[in-house]
Amino acid sequence: MKKTLIILSGGMDSTTLLYHLLDEGYKIEALSFDYLQRHRRELDSAKKICELTGVRHELLQIPSLTGSALTFDGDVPHGHYAEESMKATVVPNRNMVMLAHAVSTAIARGFDSVAYGCHAGDHTIYPDCRAEFVEAMRKAFALCDWTEVELLTPFLEWDKGQIARRGAELNVPFELTWTCYEGGKEPCGKCGSCVEREEAMATIEAA
Amino acid sequence: MKKTLIILSGGMDSTTLLYHLLDEGYKIEALSFDYLQRHRRELDSAKKICELTGVRHELLQIPSLTGSALTFDGDVPHGHYAEESMKATVVPNRNMVMLAHAVSTAIARGFDSVAYGCHAGDHTIYPDCRAEFVEAMRKAFALCDWTEVELLTPFLEWDKGQIARRGAELNVPFELTWTCYEGGKEPCGKCGSCVEREEAMATIEAA
Repeated sequence: MKKTLIILSGGMDSTTLLYHLLDEGYKIEALSFDYLQRHRRELDSAKKICELTGVRHELLQIPSLTGSALTFDGDVPHGHYAEESMKATVVPNRNMVMLAHAVSTAIARGFDSVAYGCHAGDHTIYPDCRAEFVEAMRKAFALCDWTEVELLTPFLEWDKGQIARRGAELNVPFELTWTCYEGGKEPCGKCGSCVEREEAMATIEAA
Repeated sequence: MKKTLIILSGGMDSTTLLYHLLDEGYKIEALSFDYLQRHRRELDSAKKICELTGVRHELLQIPSLTGSALTFDGDVPHGHYAEESMKATVVPNRNMVMLAHAVSTAIARGFDSVAYGCHAGDHTIYPDCRAEFVEAMRKAFALCDWTEVELLTPFLEWDKGQIARRGAELNVPFELTWTCYEGGKEPCGKCGSCVEREEAMATIEAA
């Protein structure tokens, strides 16, 4: 059986990826990261999703990441997800840090791949979601140990609408997932992340 | 002035790298990692070296790494550094984790490069010291942020003897550095790391 360690934020992309890979027959364990993010409540979502799917869940603390509106260095910008102002929400090199820890855990547990829900909608704002970056990491994954670790990114060229529609098809409990960058009691509906989610969800009904 | 963040273990390679880059005119800050390694006392060496050179020093905790004789999963093998048995001292993907954290810290502080003391003597045993791995990471460094982060590895093709001789030239206080994997009160003289250090030091006198 194919075994993969998924990086699970608790948002709709990684949660749909979890359901997508379960549907493809993978044995899965999940890893989430607490980097003192403003929207840490996404971690409760990750925990609930894992309980619901019976997937082993581990939480790693990486409190050293700084320099982003998401780590309280400045305010979360409102507006559309693809706007230049959204770059304030880049957490410097966050994805390389998460991917690196995931590989270490995967190797230690005898897993041969790591799965990560990056998608085309992220490419404009987040440098560490771009396909070129992912390809460089894929190569590093293949060389970092004496056995190759595969990097699974099936959504790399999908837009968020496609992810939402695939999720709907798989009956993903979207109501349990968390997307808003503000991390308040209810989604703010104004940050780029909320706006992008609503746009994606609207394509389910349109489909 | 060129600014770099050096990954400093407290061993002779990274310490010589620190002196080498100071000699080349870099402004330097140092980052060390506590991964509950058996030879954690190397961190005291790193601290002392930084005090001596007036370099700002930060220590990051990454306790999740496992699966190596160096993280107490099995005993440290004795014998020559290049022997197959030494692979028990590989800490799965340790270097990618350290490099990733170093990049995040470098970006947050406005530094444009990370320096790392890997050398040719490590290539046989440690997959994440091989030139191909370093090249993949160099590429990932260039893509992980909107500004490129450079990866400085001036010792990549040097053997440890060359590092020892360069260190001697720069008056590196080798007596403050720590190499032994056992991490006891005194160097054991039997682990591969001790053996390799002694061989390298012997080339200083022979030179």
